[in-house]
Amino acid sequence: MALIVQKYGGTSVGDIERIKNVASKVKARAEAGNRMVVVLSAMAGVTDSLIKMAKEMSPEPAARELDVLMATGEQQSVALFCMAAADMGLQARSLLGFQAAILTDRMFGKARITDVETARIKELLDAGKAVVVAGFQGMDWDSGDLTTLGRGGSDTTAVALAAALKADVCEIFTDVEGVYTTDPNVVPSARKLDFISYEEMLEMASLGAKVLDIRSVEFAAKFGVKIHVRSTFTDREGTMVVPEDQITEKLIISGVAYNKNEAKLTIKDVPDHPGIASQIFTPISQAGIVVDVIIQNTSDDGKTDLTFTVPKIDYERAKGILAQTASGIGAGQVTGNPDIAKVSIIGIGMRNHAGVATKMFGVLARENINILTINTSEIKISCVIEEKYTELAVRALHEAFGLAQGNTPVAEDLV
Amino acid sequence: MALIVQKYGGTSVGDIERIKNVASKVKARAEAGNRMVVVLSAMAGVTDSLIKMAKEMSPEPAARELDVLMATGEQQSVALFCMAAADMGLQARSLLGFQAAILTDRMFGKARITDVETARIKELLDAGKAVVVAGFQGMDWDSGDLTTLGRGGSDTTAVALAAALKADVCEIFTDVEGVYTTDPNVVPSARKLDFISYEEMLEMASLGAKVLDIRSVEFAAKFGVKIHVRSTFTDREGTMVVPEDQITEKLIISGVAYNKNEAKLTIKDVPDHPGIASQIFTPISQAGIVVDVIIQNTSDDGKTDLTFTVPKIDYERAKGILAQTASGIGAGQVTGNPDIAKVSIIGIGMRNHAGVATKMFGVLARENINILTINTSEIKISCVIEEKYTELAVRALHEAFGLAQGNTPVAEDLV
Repeated sequence: MALIVQKYGGTSVGDIERIKNVASKVKARAEAGNRMVVVLSAMAGVTDSLIKMAKEMSPEPAARELDVLMATGEQQSVALFCMAAADMGLQARSLLGFQAAILTDRMFGKARITDVETARIKELLDAGKAVVVAGFQGMDWDSGDLTTLGRGGSDTTAVALAAALKADVCEIFTDVEGVYTTDPNVVPSARKLDFISYEEMLEMASLGAKVLDIRSVEFAAKFGVKIHVRSTFTDREGTMVVPEDQITEKLIISGVAYNKNEAKLTIKDVPDHPGIASQIFTPISQAGIVVDVIIQNTSDDGKTDLTFTVPKIDYERAKGILAQTASGIGAGQVTGNPDIAKVSIIGIGMRNHAGVATKMFGVLARENINILTINTSEIKISCVIEEKYTELAVRALHEAFGLAQGNTPVAEDLV
Repeated sequence: MALIVQKYGGTSVGDIERIKNVASKVKARAEAGNRMVVVLSAMAGVTDSLIKMAKEMSPEPAARELDVLMATGEQQSVALFCMAAADMGLQARSLLGFQAAILTDRMFGKARITDVETARIKELLDAGKAVVVAGFQGMDWDSGDLTTLGRGGSDTTAVALAAALKADVCEIFTDVEGVYTTDPNVVPSARKLDFISYEEMLEMASLGAKVLDIRSVEFAAKFGVKIHVRSTFTDREGTMVVPEDQITEKLIISGVAYNKNEAKLTIKDVPDHPGIASQIFTPISQAGIVVDVIIQNTSDDGKTDLTFTVPKIDYERAKGILAQTASGIGAGQVTGNPDIAKVSIIGIGMRNHAGVATKMFGVLARENINILTINTSEIKISCVIEEKYTELAVRALHEAFGLAQGNTPVAEDLV
């Protein structure tokens, strides 16, 4: 008898009929002898309309109260689900975040789960009930205040529950069939992966692949929770996200990701002395702007150019701050470009194979795509390019690394 | 420094602008040096649309889950209110039913408040905050399940909080200016009462005057909570609902009430022996039908006719049950009339004045209105009449007892 945690996203519970469909899926699994814990998101559109309501009330809604408002979305989903379940003879019990004892810190709107007390859930499972937990929400234990985990938080709720309950698997149901080698909207031949490692999934997620929330992957990696990403609308197997050592056939490259949400800023002729980077980045982080890639070349003449990327929506603000800093520290001109994209290839096989980067640069060069910056990690190579070349670059890389066929080239082919 | 509990109904918080208006009213009172506890209903229309959603999901939604769904309405109101408050510099903190420790029994959909733990609210008040409590909802302490108190439950939340906190007054804000001598839609000269006793208010509410939920009046009477019923949309004083001994000028008649929601059933030639009433009413109450007025005349020949009223929506069902019972106990024909109304006059002064009933019957007779049944209590006389005469009866009684002028006749005038 397996213990299964399932999470259904907003599209999967988007209307009355879909909720009934999901309830019957859960029922089938329960009747097959599994102990079921189900995590639900708010119905598609509900979260956005709650945010809209809050924005109408206040340009900057009080954070604590925004969480109280947002938590109603998932509350409605679990209640409706359990009504549907009761009608079809599935014994189900809804639990809100606080009732499921999902304990968090007090960072409203982006709270982190600190603990999950499973006593109540286990009791209900032992009584033969399916337990239906409102995703995305928790409670700060000290104050009893409601909190929410931020966008994608229901994934994290599911993985945290799976970890705490030592579930056999955490199934994340969504509107795609799994994790793809790249965005199928850009490359129609993109292939669904059967397996992917936590690390690769983390890179994919942080680079903009939206199939799983990044914090849920971190959580899964930390506690060894097996995630199965699959579609609500078919019964086909999706993608298993597992520890690296459980993947037998290690592909050199698992995927090509891209991110159009960043902008690039450069500050020229920065005096190259200790502490200068801190002087530049402190005002930017104080403004709540998250810096991603940072590139600094070594300098010959005591001056250096420094380039970094920020979210596109923060571009103008960051540029203004940087201009002030530049005059303060005696640096030169501030330039920037909001029309860039980051294209990345990801694969754990990269660790043991030389020549992957060279091949990537060669592919982009053949398409006459200029590389603005390069950034690498053990299992990822990212290039910032002009935004207009994004799709071309993604298609060329997907093709060159043979991802559509599932026969990623071995080391010899790469050089 | 007074401690004031205020309750605002659904119309008062019906949209963004109205919520802001209410927040500024609360702010003014807080700045005048009062400690403020505010209870809110769901925004007008929200409760109905949640019920609609539940009915779409299930013909008979699971009771526990219906409460989880319904509780989101008030949750949204308090969150939005506190956002508005924060923007205008009023320090306000929302509390859901469970956070305010409104403890109830487990009767989902019509839970009764069993206890209110005020520690958290007092702490927030001491910290200079306005405390904004979601009305209508509570929690069953043993299970941690959410409960709701049923229609009008926010009034009860407010009065229960006022009692537990020993508030100076409980202000119920609504879309009318107070308690009227009768329905102003029927009698335009109906006059707002400055004072009314709990007992009169109870009779008014139970007879269909919708200004206060009956359970909240019972609660207020039990704990001596002073209620001030007033309008959200003006600053005028409304009606004080207080203990009888605080009313100096005791009117003989305070109001004329009517109720069109009942139907009348008669079972003829009932064998008149002990236990027969129980045989008749047990099957009806087992069907969940609430019986109101019961009339039974003494019999001469060992047989009697028995008449009673039930809610109009239960008329057909009750009639069917009664027909079965009649043949079982050897009674005669079952007749009924769904087109009736109950018209009542209410007043604590009635206790010490004879002739009130006689005058009422005379007024109805002068208008050629036939009285079908009569039912009296210490402070109320109710007559069931044909429904079509309702407005005529109400107007005639209101006029005859001088309610528009506020000079209810003294005893001598009555005969």
